[in-house]
Amino acid sequence: MNLEELTKLRRDFHKFAEAGWCEFRTTSIIAETLSKLGYEVQVGKAILDESSVMGRDESIVPNEIERALRQGADPKWIEKMEGYTGALAVLDTGKEGPTIALRFDIDAVEVSEAKDDKHRPYREGFSSVNSGAMHACGHDGHAAIGLGVAQVLAAEKDLLRGKIKLIFQPAEEGVRGGKAIAEKGILDDCDYLLALHLGLGLPTGKIAGGVAGLLCTTKFDVFYKGKASHAGVAPNEGKNALLGAANAVINLQAIASHRKGTSRINVGVLHAGEGRNVIPPKAMFKAETRGETEEIASYVYERAMKIVKSCASMYDLECIVKEMGKSTTAKSDGDLVDLICQVAEETREFNSIESFYNMGGSDDFSWMMKRVQEKGGKASYIALGADIEAGHHNEYFDFDEKSLLKGVVLMSQLVEKLTNSES
Amino acid sequence: MNLEELTKLRRDFHKFAEAGWCEFRTTSIIAETLSKLGYEVQVGKAILDESSVMGRDESIVPNEIERALRQGADPKWIEKMEGYTGALAVLDTGKEGPTIALRFDIDAVEVSEAKDDKHRPYREGFSSVNSGAMHACGHDGHAAIGLGVAQVLAAEKDLLRGKIKLIFQPAEEGVRGGKAIAEKGILDDCDYLLALHLGLGLPTGKIAGGVAGLLCTTKFDVFYKGKASHAGVAPNEGKNALLGAANAVINLQAIASHRKGTSRINVGVLHAGEGRNVIPPKAMFKAETRGETEEIASYVYERAMKIVKSCASMYDLECIVKEMGKSTTAKSDGDLVDLICQVAEETREFNSIESFYNMGGSDDFSWMMKRVQEKGGKASYIALGADIEAGHHNEYFDFDEKSLLKGVVLMSQLVEKLTNSES
Amino acid sequence: MNLEELTKLRRDFHKFAEAGWCEFRTTSIIAETLSKLGYEVQVGKAILDESSVMGRDESIVPNEIERALRQGADPKWIEKMEGYTGALAVLDTGKEGPTIALRFDIDAVEVSEAKDDKHRPYREGFSSVNSGAMHACGHDGHAAIGLGVAQVLAAEKDLLRGKIKLIFQPAEEGVRGGKAIAEKGILDDCDYLLALHLGLGLPTGKIAGGVAGLLCTTKFDVFYKGKASHAGVAPNEGKNALLGAANAVINLQAIASHRKGTSRINVGVLHAGEGRNVIPPKAMFKAETRGETEEIASYVYERAMKIVKSCASMYDLECIVKEMGKSTTAKSDGDLVDLICQVAEETREFNSIESFYNMGGSDDFSWMMKRVQEKGGKASYIALGADIEAGHHNEYFDFDEKSLLKGVVLMSQLVEKLTNSES
Amino acid sequence: MNLEELTKLRRDFHKFAEAGWCEFRTTSIIAETLSKLGYEVQVGKAILDESSVMGRDESIVPNEIERALRQGADPKWIEKMEGYTGALAVLDTGKEGPTIALRFDIDAVEVSEAKDDKHRPYREGFSSVNSGAMHACGHDGHAAIGLGVAQVLAAEKDLLRGKIKLIFQPAEEGVRGGKAIAEKGILDDCDYLLALHLGLGLPTGKIAGGVAGLLCTTKFDVFYKGKASHAGVAPNEGKNALLGAANAVINLQAIASHRKGTSRINVGVLHAGEGRNVIPPKAMFKAETRGETEEIASYVYERAMKIVKSCASMYDLECIVKEMGKSTTAKSDGDLVDLICQVAEETREFNSIESFYNMGGSDDFSWMMKRVQEKGGKASYIALGADIEAGHHNEYFDFDEKSLLKGVVLMSQLVEKLTNSES
Repeated sequence: MNLEELTKLRRDFHKFAEAGWCEFRTTSIIAETLSKLGYEVQVGKAILDESSVMGRDESIVPNEIERALRQGADPKWIEKMEGYTGALAVLDTGKEGPTIALRFDIDAVEVSEAKDDKHRPYREGFSSVNSGAMHACGHDGHAAIGLGVAQVLAAEKDLLRGKIKLIFQPAEEGVRGGKAIAEKGILDDCDYLLALHLGLGLPTGKIAGGVAGLLCTTKFDVFYKGKASHAGVAPNEGKNALLGAANAVINLQAIASHRKGTSRINVGVLHAGEGRNVIPPKAMFKAETRGETEEIASYVYERAMKIVKSCASMYDLECIVKEMGKSTTAKSDGDLVDLICQVAEETREFNSIESFYNMGGSDDFSWMMKRVQEKGGKASYIALGADIEAGHHNEYFDFDEKSLLKGVVLMSQLVEKLTNSES
Repeated sequence: MNLEELTKLRRDFHKFAEAGWCEFRTTSIIAETLSKLGYEVQVGKAILDESSVMGRDESIVPNEIERALRQGADPKWIEKMEGYTGALAVLDTGKEGPTIALRFDIDAVEVSEAKDDKHRPYREGFSSVNSGAMHACGHDGHAAIGLGVAQVLAAEKDLLRGKIKLIFQPAEEGVRGGKAIAEKGILDDCDYLLALHLGLGLPTGKIAGGVAGLLCTTKFDVFYKGKASHAGVAPNEGKNALLGAANAVINLQAIASHRKGTSRINVGVLHAGEGRNVIPPKAMFKAETRGETEEIASYVYERAMKIVKSCASMYDLECIVKEMGKSTTAKSDGDLVDLICQVAEETREFNSIESFYNMGGSDDFSWMMKRVQEKGGKASYIALGADIEAGHHNEYFDFDEKSLLKGVVLMSQLVEKLTNSES
Repeated sequence: MNLEELTKLRRDFHKFAEAGWCEFRTTSIIAETLSKLGYEVQVGKAILDESSVMGRDESIVPNEIERALRQGADPKWIEKMEGYTGALAVLDTGKEGPTIALRFDIDAVEVSEAKDDKHRPYREGFSSVNSGAMHACGHDGHAAIGLGVAQVLAAEKDLLRGKIKLIFQPAEEGVRGGKAIAEKGILDDCDYLLALHLGLGLPTGKIAGGVAGLLCTTKFDVFYKGKASHAGVAPNEGKNALLGAANAVINLQAIASHRKGTSRINVGVLHAGEGRNVIPPKAMFKAETRGETEEIASYVYERAMKIVKSCASMYDLECIVKEMGKSTTAKSDGDLVDLICQVAEETREFNSIESFYNMGGSDDFSWMMKRVQEKGGKASYIALGADIEAGHHNEYFDFDEKSLLKGVVLMSQLVEKLTNSES
Repeated sequence: MNLEELTKLRRDFHKFAEAGWCEFRTTSIIAETLSKLGYEVQVGKAILDESSVMGRDESIVPNEIERALRQGADPKWIEKMEGYTGALAVLDTGKEGPTIALRFDIDAVEVSEAKDDKHRPYREGFSSVNSGAMHACGHDGHAAIGLGVAQVLAAEKDLLRGKIKLIFQPAEEGVRGGKAIAEKGILDDCDYLLALHLGLGLPTGKIAGGVAGLLCTTKFDVFYKGKASHAGVAPNEGKNALLGAANAVINLQAIASHRKGTSRINVGVLHAGEGRNVIPPKAMFKAETRGETEEIASYVYERAMKIVKSCASMYDLECIVKEMGKSTTAKSDGDLVDLICQVAEETREFNSIESFYNMGGSDDFSWMMKRVQEKGGKASYIALGADIEAGHHNEYFDFDEKSLLKGVVLMSQLVEKLTNSES
């Protein structure tokens, strides 16, 4: 696949952006392409441990499927998915050798894309047609790279040994899907596991063999329920859910730092109230806590729960907390990172190569890394530089498509190198 | 019109609830009914002073009109409205006599109605079919009473003298429409001005000739704009609009009471943020301030503005405040109240009659009262008891429909009495 | 006693200001004066119901007594007081007639007086020599008036009938002493009970026969205990009592108004922390809640307790709440008020006389009024106008001493009038 | 000096604890001891750059001196100090060689010591007799070690070369004194500069040759001035300084973390208000900001100033911010650290030796390190392990006195090693 084809593919995914657990069209296209390339393909429910699925809203699935069908999804694949998204493609060389898994995440962010001529996707007609979903994190590129790699590997099958597993993961945003794939056990025979992420602050042509500082994180939604009352006539008869939530937001932000390292907290979304002159009877907010280690992350989460419950109590509110996603931390294996750097060097695609890059965010690929490492395999999470137009998750996000080909070249050569190594 | 007809009318308005400035179907039905009864009818733009219109969102009008047409509005009347709602019907007896105006407000509240079998409107199939709009304040009843009175007066035209003006006011919720009617000057020739409100905490069969304690109020929306940033990777680069808003909400609520009397403050609605892991770049909230007198109301509003601006400054946010509605205070005239009580007695519809009832809320009927009183006329705002199922503006609000007929009887007899009085 | 003598007396009390439960010198001088005038005098413990004493700190009593002795208190009276302050003087005419009680409060406010030449007490050398105690509410004047009245009544004893009881109440500030006097039962035989207060916003020469709107109030101290930790090294190991208290202060202030009437809340004093770089392990604050009725006052107090406890829970703090004072509401009897107005007229001392004045504050004289009224007696709380230099409790407070004589004249003539009335 | 003597000395300093800029007795004893050992001693003003003195309250100096004299300070030394504290002792060997400076800080923390039998200093009779001052950070030990080292070096003078400067620094707590010593220039000829700190989380027998992660910090006091008003009668007329401060405290704590590294914020002390029923007209609080780098520290400080000013504005308060102390970051020189580790090994006093220890706090020794390093010298800040009973600055803080001798041995041998090195 050349750069033009990769670009076309990426732009198609970009235009029909689908948020986590709704990647029906995206999965359908991926599955069909892989299948045609000769891979054995499984989709949706078959590749997920259902009890580990997080942050999925069953109720919106029918509408999302309907839209996917309207936008070109193949009913045959939709049926196979059984309501869940994602794909696993296996290339068995038939020869003895290591099992190597590559993971590509495919979901969009829940952001509405900028409609503005200074934004290339809009200007060139491939901005998202699905309101509230936008590929603002580059997963459209990951999906395209994944298919590019699939094509190369299929073409070079005879040169390879062992087994190649390509995982197209749903719902990485909000760290909701990774654990379900890890827990399904489909990685348990892997000797090597790799993923890459575009951008992350590195320019096109730069690469880091391993990402450090993946933060443990918990994503949760809080629902407060109080009591409505007319704000002029009977202010004392209400139970003000907004006041409870406003206190929670500020005090969550004020959780003290931990002596042992980095922590984070954010309340990213809040909705409260019904009418201007009604004491707000309901509030909901979406929050996340993070920590450099499980100890720090637990400290922040426990403090958060204390605050959330105390603020409910202060305004006499019912309180429900729903866990929406969860990720752990994981470290890329040093010798695998060294190998990646060496291959990167050999590709001549990169003018700047470093071993570890500290990212400061979270990725539920960590669940898979941990699983593989626990079983004795090795894993790394690669940062693939790409110039970006605006920060990740920003409505003006866009990336330098030249990096797509670099990604394909790196990953294919890595697989070739690994397949012929001693596992 | 008997109770059955009134009930049917009320339930129709209830089912097709339309919020303020969107009462296109409601206005159309009212106008058509009045026109058939022989009234001279004007609608929409013609009866409003445009520069005094508050809290109207031009952009939603086309969709609202389209829905109204789908739900049975008459295109002829829609056209006459010129994008605005409300109706004025005049009955000129041709005989010398006083000019008497009655005002009925017709808009729904922006609340989603309960869908629950314990809620009669739902159980009996007349709950609102328009999501986010519900007659949760009884204006459906006011509109029905208004048409009932219109019918009685038209039938008794020969017994009457002077002129009768029936005003079906839009957008009373949020006190957005009253001033535009007052300022249009259509009340300037009135000797008497009356309005009634159902419920207000009084049971069916009770009535108060005048409402006291109408609070001055200002309704305003606040828009904060900060800067998005990834909450894990670059928390210091964001400008957190939600934190600014949360502080504003709490401190607004904490505005000190005024030594001279009652004040109120409420933030009824708040929306902020875009994604869980993004520092919230935007927040908006809907607030209102109230005071027993203009002095107190000004004090609360000025404190509110100070807080709103300081909280923006604290988080380095841009801040826009939009005034969405405004009402003043007004007093019912004592001798008119006495007359109302006397007529109420004569109707034999009421088992409990009092002169003044302290309501504690606001109604932009006050603009009209003030206008009429300044020109030498007399005005009163009547509280018509009605058992209610839940507080005003609550999603379970419903009222005892027996009060509808009581309202019609009282208002018609009042007009008869006044029409024959010396103006 | 002429104006010069009254002024001298007032200035002596002013200079040696003693806060509530510490009025040892003040009581000693009052007792000695009354005793010399021929009254039967009881002091301190003898006139108080100990179980109703509120907000008294036993531990500071020895030092306070020592200071009083240094400043001229008579050891004989100090001994009789048994650690408590206040005096009751009885004048028994020996003739049948009503029992009339007058109450004068004698304590200073816990404020440090201005030391500034623009402040008369300082300029003329009678500002408080006791740091942290200042007669900033006029009780020095009340005490002086009380002694003036005592002298007049003693001199006119032959013209009087029945019994006169003069009560010099300790610890009115913080409403701590009134209930202990009411509960002692020494008012149970009273037919009439009167008190007056200087200033209150009325100018010299104005008087109101009764004060309306005495608010029910509870005074309480809150103690939070968390855990210290080095703020740089181990911020997560602290439990931050100041953050708990700061949240409590703001949310207490934000308690919603009550539909039925006036309420108040204040946190007047807060102390927290130990060192700049230590997570504050302790915080204490002094608060008060008020309400126009017991229902409203209870609502505010209960909301306050909920907030105080929830904020402690939010920061994992131990919490102790100590009730420091409590007062109820009471109404002056209308016919007694009328009589007061009539006597005020007869004195020719006042150019403006009104029946009721709405004060908006609290006074624990209400406990005594209630007690007397429950036993069938009548009571009134009089507002005696006096020009003031700054608001009550302000460090620049001072009042027009001409009002002292007006107070003596009014109260003496009132007693004469009542003593000869039918009880 | 043996362990018994060191312990005795330390306990004497502990008992007569003096806070920063008040170490008159402490300085007097140190100066006298050093002088007797043959050092040239300068004290107080003579060793400080006055314009760099921070956080010193001139007004309390007379009382503090008086107390010091009562507690055994020598009037001769007090006079020489000219109101300032601290001492510099020089031992000139007369032989060519390097100039080596050692710094020992001598001030107590503003904490009241626990009076509790489980606390050894109390149980054994050497807890602080000065209320509000306690050696809760081990500077009593530093001072004792300094004198111990002074004795050893004086005794071994013949073995040494070059010049030795012993600095007994005042007011390290609050980072108020270090800059004044650095700026005085008395270190400008130093080839080596050393300091040690007891405890810091390391157990007895452990040592780290260099402390890493000294945080840049700014200490500041905030004064808010509003307006008093009676909280019951005229709540709207006050300007509530406590509400402003409470908001500031919470929002300061909520300053977002910086992507580039560690930051800290603390409000350690807050005092507000005058009386329970008075709207608090004044509030003051003591705060500090910190950051791993100047960039981060500036970010936190600037955010803090924005919050402090906006909260003042929100409640219409006058606001004064006073800078009370300031420290920078500094790095120990790697080769000097290596040498320290080597000497530590040679002393046989330590069972665990590491190069760098990340402390997470601040010390204004950084100003001196920077000054010396800028002039071409080398500096290190040593962490000397000592078991502690409670965290630094806690009222139960106490340390294992066995570490005193270890400190003396290490520092003396280090000087010997360095004195004979090539400078």
